[in-house]
Formats: sequence, structure tokens, C-alpha cells
Amino acid sequence: MTRQQLFDKIKEKESFLCVGLDTDVKKIPHHLLQAKDPVFEFNKQIIDATHRYAVAYKPNTAFYEAQGAKGWDSLQKTLEYIPADIFTIADAKRADIGNTSSMYASAFFENMNFDSVTVAPYMGSDSVKPFLAFDNKWVILLAATSNPGGLDFQNLITSDGEKLYERVIRESAKWGDADNLMYVVGATRPEALADIRKIVPHHFLLIPGVGAQGGDLHAVCEYGMNEQCGLLVNSSRGIIYSDSSENFGSSAGIQAQKIQIEMAEILQRL
Amino acid sequence: MTRQQLFDKIKEKESFLCVGLDTDVKKIPHHLLQAKDPVFEFNKQIIDATHRYAVAYKPNTAFYEAQGAKGWDSLQKTLEYIPADIFTIADAKRADIGNTSSMYASAFFENMNFDSVTVAPYMGSDSVKPFLAFDNKWVILLAATSNPGGLDFQNLITSDGEKLYERVIRESAKWGDADNLMYVVGATRPEALADIRKIVPHHFLLIPGVGAQGGDLHAVCEYGMNEQCGLLVNSSRGIIYSDSSENFGSSAGIQAQKIQIEMAEILQRL
Repeated sequence: MTRQQLFDKIKEKESFLCVGLDTDVKKIPHHLLQAKDPVFEFNKQIIDATHRYAVAYKPNTAFYEAQGAKGWDSLQKTLEYIPADIFTIADAKRADIGNTSSMYASAFFENMNFDSVTVAPYMGSDSVKPFLAFDNKWVILLAATSNPGGLDFQNLITSDGEKLYERVIRESAKWGDADNLMYVVGATRPEALADIRKIVPHHFLLIPGVGAQGGDLHAVCEYGMNEQCGLLVNSSRGIIYSDSSENFGSSAGIQAQKIQIEMAEILQRL
Repeated sequence: MTRQQLFDKIKEKESFLCVGLDTDVKKIPHHLLQAKDPVFEFNKQIIDATHRYAVAYKPNTAFYEAQGAKGWDSLQKTLEYIPADIFTIADAKRADIGNTSSMYASAFFENMNFDSVTVAPYMGSDSVKPFLAFDNKWVILLAATSNPGGLDFQNLITSDGEKLYERVIRESAKWGDADNLMYVVGATRPEALADIRKIVPHHFLLIPGVGAQGGDLHAVCEYGMNEQCGLLVNSSRGIIYSDSSENFGSSAGIQAQKIQIEMAEILQRL
């Protein structure tokens, strides 16, 4: 999916919502445990209920890996079930030396057909570039993450006077461009967004941390939005675990729609 | 495995060799492709040929993930085949927000029974601590990596005048101790080792980059060794792909033994 196609979809659906499929087999409604593949069955119903309101889905690979080979199958089936016009993110936070990163890129872009993968920056250029070598695929690089530990190193001031996450963005922006590179910026750090927009005005940003982690949608949009929206705002737990009964699907749909309605209002200001 | 047990094994085997099982199905001898599980068959023969000379095995998860669910099975079988007295490292370079890192820790320490997992530091304390919560398990944190891109961010000077990788070590050393935390330091950066030993004199270091990546064993030992050896030196490609014929196993054994003999000499100086 190209940047323009993503923006067109945002306008069409009046939404920049990404639904995080962090599907923990211990947290899904009990009646699903009878199903052949409970994780996939849960995802299927969540996707059925939310796809009208979302432009992206983001399964976090940790939840699937925790189930071993079976979980990997559930992930593959989930990906295939997501409607083709919705942007898919493998939230994998991978990166390794060059030849090994190529294997990860192959896993997510070839064996599975994800549109994008989240990548960790610590190992530098040759750990990121193999993911950028695929046409029509995206790297979403960790910059300023939403978790408390995100402050441990990312906000360190370098001898040039900039924060580490700013340096990561400034440097990595040379490895790709706004058409194949996005950044992860936590909703819990809206003050960072204004500074980041000075460095990368045109790149899309993936914003986790709205909802369960306490981030505020309006603050994020005030500081982070650009002329093509430029934001994918993720909510995971607030949508998918909003109801633990057999009605979990319709409840997830309602939560997703609530966010979409807020987003539609915000988009009218563009 | 405890630190003392690891050191006892190093003395017994006169070796601190870690064999990297970066098993790429495109690089293994052709005759193995007839086997039911070629990757496992390759690993099995490599382990048979090298286990006398090694104290650790380190499968890099990228190579298994690139095969999807099937690869995950090969990894599990490989882990179960490794003799119980050999230290096992899931070279996965994972890390995520706290509750998600717990899922990764569960994947590698509970579903699979690895002794250790490599972890990326960028997301800070709550992304690392869930891995440290398991008894008798180890975190091996990326510090100064062996790849060219390792210099992009890890050597940045902070406003306190220390390098980022030094800060990562100094800070993370508070989250665990020498009995559950090791660091990755590339063999291609021996000059870093002396400085790192000033910060963490007692921790074990995992040293990749000897062999195909050009690192020198003697330089590594000169700057990095401590009173309990304190080093696990990894070789992957130089051992496992030393011969592409049906004799690949015995050839790998010879390469591993060569390194072990060098290590035995070095250990006598302890």
C-alpha cells in the first residue's frame, strides 16, 4: 500500500484507527476455548466487528510466539482474514545484523504478506535497511515509545544537544523516505510530537498508548497531524478486551466506532 | 544454569565456544533437502559433531521464523536435542512494553526451555525486567554489537560524556546482576571491552563476530576475560558452513575443535 492509498483510505473511512490484535489466550472469552483455534476465532470476530472503523490491524507477534508453532499458524490465518484494503503491521520489533535482518524481512514480507513491520533501531543502519529493500513494504521504526522505560535511554541528550530519539529519527530518515518509513511515537509523550514533526513533517507516525496506557487522542492530533493525516493511532486492550462475554465482538465494534467518530470530527479540520 | 556451573563447564571442556545455529535452508547441503525436516537434520549433525567442543549453542530465531510454523517446530526439536549440560541461547533480540515482554519471556523460557534470550535495550527497564523475573534464566542484553551499524547510535556520546552502550550497561546492571544478566559485545570492537570491564567486571559477555565477521579471539580475550573466564565466544558461519558436502558434520567438528584448542591454551593462563 502506498502513502497516498493509505491517506485515501483514511479519508474514505474517516478513520486513522489501528486495532492492536494482542490476543492473549488467557484473556479471551472462555467459550472460545472450545474452538479448534481459539486465538484465530477471537481475531476473526474482532475483525468482523471492527473492520469498518479501522484502516490498520497490528498483531503483536509476542502473543502468537507464546503459543509456539500453533500461534504462528493463528497469526498467518489472522493475516489472511484481514480485508485486503486494510494496512497490516507485524508488531515484531525485530532487528539484527544485515544478513539476519534479511531473514526477518523475508519472514514477514514474503512468507507472510504483511504491509509493514516494526523495527528496533539500536543496531543501526544495516539492521534496518534489509526491511527497506522490499517494494511496497514499510518499516515502522521505534523512536519514542509509550512505556515508562521509554525514558531510560531514548531521552538521553547527546553531545550534539539532541535527544537520542531525535537522533534516531534524523539519521534513519536518510535510509528511507516518507514512502517506506514510519516511526513509533507513544501517545503518552505528546510533547515529543511537535519536535518530531520538525524533523519528519511528511512521515506517517504509528501512535500506540491511547486507551489502556493513558494517552489522549486530541493531544496527539494537535501536535502530530500533518496534511495527509500522518497518524495511525493504535488501540489494543481498550477495544479487544472491552467485554469478556459472548458479546465481545459487538462490544469491540462499539468501542472502535466510538474512536472512529472522534477521529471523523478531527479529520474534518484537515 | 548458574554462573558457577557455567564456569565449571568451561574448565571441564577447556572451551568457552558458543556455536551459532544460524541455519539457513538455502545454505545447507543439498542432500539434506530430502529429509523430513532438513533444518533439524542439519542441526542434529552439527550438534553431534561439535558438542564436545562447545559450552553453548545459540540458534538465531530469524532463520527459523523465516520458515514459519515449520521453522518454529525445527527450533523446538533442535533445543530438545542439545545435551542438557550445554547452555542454550535464543538469539531473538526481543523487547516490548512490560506485559508484552512477559509474553516473549514465556515463549522462550516456559514454552521452550532456553537458558537465556538476547534482549534489545532501546525500550528500557520495563521491557527487560520481565525476562529477569525467571529463576535460573538469563538475559543477554545488546550493548556494543558487531555489525557496522552498531556504530550509528551505540557510540554516541551522551551529555554525561559516556558512550550510549556504556550508559546502557551501567543503567541495566541495576536491573539484574552477574548471575542473571550478560551483555553482547562484538568481537569486532575489542577496544570497547576494556572499558566495559571497568563497568561490569564480573558479568559474562557474549562475543559474536569471531570468524566470518573478522573479529580476533586473542584480542577479545586480552581485553575481555575475567577470573571466571567471563566470555562466551560465538562462531556461526565459520563452523556450520565450513563444508557443503555430505561431510559437513565432521568438517564443522574440526573447525570447532580448532577454536577449542586455541581456547584451551588461553584458559591455561587464567
